[in-house]
Amino acid sequence: MQSKGLLADLIHSLCCLPGVGPKSAQRMAFHLLQHDRASAIRLSEMLALASKNIGYCKQCRTLTEDELCRVCQDDQRNCEQLCIVETPADAWVIDKAGGYKGRYFILHGRLSPLDGIGPDELNIDVLEARLQGGGITEVILATNSTVEGEATAHFIAELAQKYSISATRIAHGVPMGGELEYIDSGTLIHAFDGRRKLNDD
Amino acid sequence: MQSKGLLADLIHSLCCLPGVGPKSAQRMAFHLLQHDRASAIRLSEMLALASKNIGYCKQCRTLTEDELCRVCQDDQRNCEQLCIVETPADAWVIDKAGGYKGRYFILHGRLSPLDGIGPDELNIDVLEARLQGGGITEVILATNSTVEGEATAHFIAELAQKYSISATRIAHGVPMGGELEYIDSGTLIHAFDGRRKLNDD
Repeated sequence: MQSKGLLADLIHSLCCLPGVGPKSAQRMAFHLLQHDRASAIRLSEMLALASKNIGYCKQCRTLTEDELCRVCQDDQRNCEQLCIVETPADAWVIDKAGGYKGRYFILHGRLSPLDGIGPDELNIDVLEARLQGGGITEVILATNSTVEGEATAHFIAELAQKYSISATRIAHGVPMGGELEYIDSGTLIHAFDGRRKLNDD
Repeated sequence: MQSKGLLADLIHSLCCLPGVGPKSAQRMAFHLLQHDRASAIRLSEMLALASKNIGYCKQCRTLTEDELCRVCQDDQRNCEQLCIVETPADAWVIDKAGGYKGRYFILHGRLSPLDGIGPDELNIDVLEARLQGGGITEVILATNSTVEGEATAHFIAELAQKYSISATRIAHGVPMGGELEYIDSGTLIHAFDGRRKLNDD
């Protein structure tokens, strides 16, 4: 294919970003070239550096440029709690929220027999070795609340049981600030099922 | 500022793109690193190449990596028509639409006395030299339909008059496929003012 020029090539390349179509890509290209070349150059450098250097943490399997990610390196973190998530992005948002001070383990997927994804495909043995290694007292299951996510959580809860490790599931219910009127019925049913006592009697 | 890691730096850099906030940037970074490093590397290269090599066309002042842009280089284009636009992006969308076969001239702004932008700031003398040079029979004014865009169009129409060049303004009215019910009143008034005869009598 003959190039239609550098500008067209740049617009085409920007379309690789998720959520960016030809119109947004066009807007981005013109903005960068006319008003912010310094940012364009910096973004170019960061993309190259990140693509080349970011791999997976040896211990928790999240994305990092080091052998061990910052959370796994941090002695201040509670190493008795292990939060299990499906993707590195899940671990990232939990960590940005800031409340959880334990460690993570990234499954890189969820059990999905229909798609041929079983415990072997998720390398559950790596997780099992970690649970077996000792020191962990609680496994917090933060897989998504889909059918596959729930099944994965239950599978790992049973695995934890084998090593006498307590397994907990994050709460599902009405989001903070959410108005009942606009909450879907599945979430509402969950919120009622998971109701907690407020008084002592 | 100490770096919070390559991933955080990449997310921060992606926020320089217009319309991209921290959440979208996060989504983009994880998508590229986990599923599409080849595109990330290509985008990095294109950003570097474009930032370094794209300048302005000597003749029409649009963005191009060559001395003369493809439109100005193309002998097949009608060099008697000159379409005047405010930005390179405007010329780009008109050219992509495909109907216009003449040449362009980019103002890089519009007259705006309140902001201190007069004919000198827009380098109108470059345009005047082009009109004076001969060969142009029609100037098509495609500045935006804002107060400043209209004023700019009228100013250039008078300039064209000086060299006996016909000046036309692109039509403003109801967009193709637009439903009257949802069109703003300014556009509707324009559409009535600009009505055309359909029959001969």
